[in-house]
Amino acid sequence: MTETLRIGMVGYAFMGAAHSHAWRTAPRFFDLPLGIGMTALAGRDSERVTAAAAKLGWDSVETDWRRLVERDDIDLVDICVPGNLHAEIAIAALEAGKHVLCEKPLANSVEEAERMTEAAEAAKANGVLAMCGFSYRRTPALSLAKRLVDSGALGEIRHVRAQYLQDWLTDENAPLTWRLDKDKSGSGSLGDIGAHIIDAAQWIGGADITGVSAILETFVKERPVGGDFVGLGGHGGTDGPKGPVTVDDAAVFTARFGNNAIGVFEATRFALGRKNAMRLELNGSKASLAFDFEDMNSLWFYDSADGPNSGFRKIQATEPEHPYTGNWWPVGHGLGYEHGFTHQVVDLVNAIGAGEQPTPSFGDALQVQKVLAAVEASAADESRWTAV
Amino acid sequence: MTETLRIGMVGYAFMGAAHSHAWRTAPRFFDLPLGIGMTALAGRDSERVTAAAAKLGWDSVETDWRRLVERDDIDLVDICVPGNLHAEIAIAALEAGKHVLCEKPLANSVEEAERMTEAAEAAKANGVLAMCGFSYRRTPALSLAKRLVDSGALGEIRHVRAQYLQDWLTDENAPLTWRLDKDKSGSGSLGDIGAHIIDAAQWIGGADITGVSAILETFVKERPVGGDFVGLGGHGGTDGPKGPVTVDDAAVFTARFGNNAIGVFEATRFALGRKNAMRLELNGSKASLAFDFEDMNSLWFYDSADGPNSGFRKIQATEPEHPYTGNWWPVGHGLGYEHGFTHQVVDLVNAIGAGEQPTPSFGDALQVQKVLAAVEASAADESRWTAV
Amino acid sequence: MTETLRIGMVGYAFMGAAHSHAWRTAPRFFDLPLGIGMTALAGRDSERVTAAAAKLGWDSVETDWRRLVERDDIDLVDICVPGNLHAEIAIAALEAGKHVLCEKPLANSVEEAERMTEAAEAAKANGVLAMCGFSYRRTPALSLAKRLVDSGALGEIRHVRAQYLQDWLTDENAPLTWRLDKDKSGSGSLGDIGAHIIDAAQWIGGADITGVSAILETFVKERPVGGDFVGLGGHGGTDGPKGPVTVDDAAVFTARFGNNAIGVFEATRFALGRKNAMRLELNGSKASLAFDFEDMNSLWFYDSADGPNSGFRKIQATEPEHPYTGNWWPVGHGLGYEHGFTHQVVDLVNAIGAGEQPTPSFGDALQVQKVLAAVEASAADESRWTAV
Amino acid sequence: MTETLRIGMVGYAFMGAAHSHAWRTAPRFFDLPLGIGMTALAGRDSERVTAAAAKLGWDSVETDWRRLVERDDIDLVDICVPGNLHAEIAIAALEAGKHVLCEKPLANSVEEAERMTEAAEAAKANGVLAMCGFSYRRTPALSLAKRLVDSGALGEIRHVRAQYLQDWLTDENAPLTWRLDKDKSGSGSLGDIGAHIIDAAQWIGGADITGVSAILETFVKERPVGGDFVGLGGHGGTDGPKGPVTVDDAAVFTARFGNNAIGVFEATRFALGRKNAMRLELNGSKASLAFDFEDMNSLWFYDSADGPNSGFRKIQATEPEHPYTGNWWPVGHGLGYEHGFTHQVVDLVNAIGAGEQPTPSFGDALQVQKVLAAVEASAADESRWTAV
Repeated sequence: MTETLRIGMVGYAFMGAAHSHAWRTAPRFFDLPLGIGMTALAGRDSERVTAAAAKLGWDSVETDWRRLVERDDIDLVDICVPGNLHAEIAIAALEAGKHVLCEKPLANSVEEAERMTEAAEAAKANGVLAMCGFSYRRTPALSLAKRLVDSGALGEIRHVRAQYLQDWLTDENAPLTWRLDKDKSGSGSLGDIGAHIIDAAQWIGGADITGVSAILETFVKERPVGGDFVGLGGHGGTDGPKGPVTVDDAAVFTARFGNNAIGVFEATRFALGRKNAMRLELNGSKASLAFDFEDMNSLWFYDSADGPNSGFRKIQATEPEHPYTGNWWPVGHGLGYEHGFTHQVVDLVNAIGAGEQPTPSFGDALQVQKVLAAVEASAADESRWTAV
Repeated sequence: MTETLRIGMVGYAFMGAAHSHAWRTAPRFFDLPLGIGMTALAGRDSERVTAAAAKLGWDSVETDWRRLVERDDIDLVDICVPGNLHAEIAIAALEAGKHVLCEKPLANSVEEAERMTEAAEAAKANGVLAMCGFSYRRTPALSLAKRLVDSGALGEIRHVRAQYLQDWLTDENAPLTWRLDKDKSGSGSLGDIGAHIIDAAQWIGGADITGVSAILETFVKERPVGGDFVGLGGHGGTDGPKGPVTVDDAAVFTARFGNNAIGVFEATRFALGRKNAMRLELNGSKASLAFDFEDMNSLWFYDSADGPNSGFRKIQATEPEHPYTGNWWPVGHGLGYEHGFTHQVVDLVNAIGAGEQPTPSFGDALQVQKVLAAVEASAADESRWTAV
Repeated sequence: MTETLRIGMVGYAFMGAAHSHAWRTAPRFFDLPLGIGMTALAGRDSERVTAAAAKLGWDSVETDWRRLVERDDIDLVDICVPGNLHAEIAIAALEAGKHVLCEKPLANSVEEAERMTEAAEAAKANGVLAMCGFSYRRTPALSLAKRLVDSGALGEIRHVRAQYLQDWLTDENAPLTWRLDKDKSGSGSLGDIGAHIIDAAQWIGGADITGVSAILETFVKERPVGGDFVGLGGHGGTDGPKGPVTVDDAAVFTARFGNNAIGVFEATRFALGRKNAMRLELNGSKASLAFDFEDMNSLWFYDSADGPNSGFRKIQATEPEHPYTGNWWPVGHGLGYEHGFTHQVVDLVNAIGAGEQPTPSFGDALQVQKVLAAVEASAADESRWTAV
Repeated sequence: MTETLRIGMVGYAFMGAAHSHAWRTAPRFFDLPLGIGMTALAGRDSERVTAAAAKLGWDSVETDWRRLVERDDIDLVDICVPGNLHAEIAIAALEAGKHVLCEKPLANSVEEAERMTEAAEAAKANGVLAMCGFSYRRTPALSLAKRLVDSGALGEIRHVRAQYLQDWLTDENAPLTWRLDKDKSGSGSLGDIGAHIIDAAQWIGGADITGVSAILETFVKERPVGGDFVGLGGHGGTDGPKGPVTVDDAAVFTARFGNNAIGVFEATRFALGRKNAMRLELNGSKASLAFDFEDMNSLWFYDSADGPNSGFRKIQATEPEHPYTGNWWPVGHGLGYEHGFTHQVVDLVNAIGAGEQPTPSFGDALQVQKVLAAVEASAADESRWTAV
């Protein structure tokens, strides 16, 4: 009889829905070493968390995450709340002997991320494991990109070109949500979407960023104070009071990597017409790779070995040989955004089953946090070159 | 307290997995008038159906679909087996007072489809509803296409250009599965994938096909006899015995529609490099639409009203205003193949809740069947023009 | 001292401008065995032909093509007038010992094309050469496609998918030009643009069409009688008198080839939003090719030998190793529409210099003419299968 | 009788061929106020310049550009030699009363560019005009982009995203040509291709760059000493002696503009697979624009006014209403790289005919030069923010 991994999740907005779907779906398409129990959902508002649990399929609720962490029938705590709460919850859960899956960015500061990493390393000695949720790593096309780089197909990497372009703040009257409040979110585009391309570039390219020169910009300085807005975007009305936007609307920076590649990064919520253009291109001495999440099932691969008839190949990353996709549909039947979360659960449960460290570890996520901090420091000092 | 719709499903291969996911997922993202009970799964082999039920999440099993149809605790029968079994199961279920969802094509012959349609109409008088599973209708981009045509945006439609291109039979040693056996599948590319583009073209364009001139071709006449192959494609080995392919590898035909448009259709499993290119383009007097399932979250729309700066717009069909997508993720976070099935369940349960006919009805699917028959008749008589 | 090939051209509209540019430009980028003399331009209206000659760079004019054919200082007659005049001019020129370049389609009937072919064969015995101007053969990406097929890269060809989509007649008040008058143009979309895809499909695929089943359609039956319109498209006003459109607006047909491939063809001027989408795709047992003139510098190539990471490669057909492009700009610096005409001149002059038959010969063009005739016969008889 | 503008051109390599084609072709497709005389070509090697003049169509030769400048029968000097010679030739020509067309970048230093600008302004007082050859401005799609921005369609511009990606130096044994020698070329990717995107971004966006933070990188430090290489790329052999590369292989920088937009720029010859990807994207508060020279006849335009069905429109910039294209072929019949040069001649001759300043003036090009200098200064000082 398979043992069951009992999950307690904190938060039930956008990320909570994605994670719930993943816990529910993973065992239906993949053979896992442990069963999945969607045991408890925590949220502050009793009525709303009860409704969310019913909708999302959780067996019970808690109105205080501390209670969740204390429960004996919880094996893993899944953290889906704004970044200002990550450190406290994660450290408490780890100290209580619960495995932890924590949404990205790991924390709102390097100091918090360092404490979390220390807690994770201490817990690991006791067989308790922690993972940070950079779910884009589990998009099959990006997993395939990683595999190609690891195989040496690209040769020496010279250029990294990374963009995460959205446009949902272009409307100057989009409401002031928690994502625009530095106290809760830590930063704006930088931590929310910039963190994804930093992680992807370092992970796929196989080298850390060693220094940056950055600009942060807030185009719209104040916005309508919203009510209870949980999604992205929307229109907040023009009559009511406004409050200050305390985070960046856009972050752009140049970078150097440990493998001598140079990089260009851009994260913005003001690229009108670009909805979720999480893009990454690597140019090596032998081959190149390009990806755009707006066409998420394709990986473009240029192999100079193809000679004069070389060209970027549009690989549909849906072959049985490709990462994850053999467990889904026939080739060409594309996957969607949420599959990254499902694959994240698969890899996490497999790691727990095997007693091995899942990736990205909190340490990996701490490295991203250090890049975020370097970007902020550089931007605050006239784009001065800042080592990570 | 919400009443529960108790489902019994027959078959658990490719389509069974897709339908199971849909029944499981629909209530988590959409507000439905009825709860969903995944009550029983039927299949002939006791061991295998039991394993499938566990994996896919069904509460009980039957080894004879007749038992399923008789059970009092089943409200709806979902038919996911090869086409030769559709008529018998559907008619029995309808007569037993069960709602029916039947995979496409509706049947292996017009005669069967007519009997099924009669049964559906008789059952409807008793409040029992039947639907055929042309799931591509529920791809948001194609639903949006339908909405645009219905709004009159295209004007008078002149051209329909439809292709369904796959390549999984290009390998001459791909095994002889049930899909290549006329007795089970009725036809080859024509019914399997051609049926989808016929349905989509008629539904979106708003007019039926009135006549066709067709070619059917079987490029590879015999193939290795496979064992127990349930997916698509694969390589069956070259040493063993071979059996005859009794269906078409490719179907191409010209067509006329009731609205005076002319059409070109092509369905094949030999379009090397095209994995699941279900494509549709409509050219009207005022605007045009184009879609390719290999980029399933986009709808291309050309509006001549844009003047000299007109151009095909790549609409990301993921806006809150677009069909279905508001219940999922933020804009630009694409959906996958299986969402069509989830939306199909949503629409079916809503129709049952409201006591209204879901679409496509068996009558709608019968019309597709008549086109398939006309294509076969034309191809068998040197492409003679054949009225539908 | 290089000998000079002295050209006399008949006609100076769209095609005349393209040919003039080609004669002027070819020797500047390619080493030719003969110099080029732009000796005389013929047209009926003295004033207009004189102005055209000055503009386009011709040294003298004639107001009767017969005079041009008789001139001793003309070595080659280039025919750029509507199809109803091709046979008479070409035969007279060949009989007068002039080489001939004749625009496509070769003629307005098979009978004319046969007489022209006979004249060309008779002339060839005297060292006088004739070529038909299917200029798209000289688009580098299509020349590269031909080279790949000839190399055996595609294996056995199963599918041909050819479209030539334009939209300049979508406006119901576009004027009634010579291209819509059967007496002058022979046919509509079929001969004007359908001829190009027929020629390209047969030439690149390496097999002739053996039979067809076709629909011809005229969506707009009458149009404003224009004045002196020489371009495409435009808006002819709604108040004046109208005359009948005597040609097809669209031609669609299925086909079989001598190599057992099956084909689908579509030529139309009503595909709103498609401006010059001359498209060709070939699917073989080993590889596939795809081309769209709207992105004319790219050839898409799918090679199954690339394994699970195969995908359509976007080859930029601008490498030094590719046909023609080494004489132009560095890689990635694309060519335009007129380069096909320049390359046509290059190949023709090289053939004349070497005393060899240029391609396509009149015989090759006659084969296209026979396909056009079969399409018309099939369409006139309810899409009956018609052998070529 | 139309007066003739008599041209003397210096240099006959890649740019010389492009300019010759432009002088020859412009009057054949456009009505110009002056005739064009291709009067003299200058180059140091008598034999080679004589052969080039015959090939490219120049009436006479000079082996010293100073002689060309002195000739009475020359009205305009066209400078197509490496940047180290621009200042001396241009100033001498202007002082001799000749109009000047000078290739970009204007010079190898700000000091030279300033002297050239002074000379141009002094000459202008005498009716003598100077223009710098940023030919990409005359690509129709980019001219259309400029027109759209000028119309206010974009609203307030927030982001500029510019890349010029080539790959012809990826091969470590590509030869050491003049383009890799700082004494001749001034800089590497920065001045050669970076200058184009700087000019395009400032011109189309309508605002100058006010400051930058930059990285310059030379990936391959030494290369085979070539012989007489005039093109791009190639393979120089591995056995012979090597010399130092004294310019940048890649230049990346962030920027701020006078209109508060922020920009990211990247110019490289090491982006394997990107052949001539001169790309520009502008995101405004109301609309966005995107362009890639590898698909040079298209402009992508996103207009938020299109509402939920907005999407990037692929405008084929070949309509009669679009800049320049009405003088060429019907819509959809694309233009090539060299047309930018032809249009440059058209605009220059029209300006001379009207006695008006052509653009870009030397002053405009000086501004680009200042940006190049700021990039170099920033890169030399650890990416320090550097005002322009």
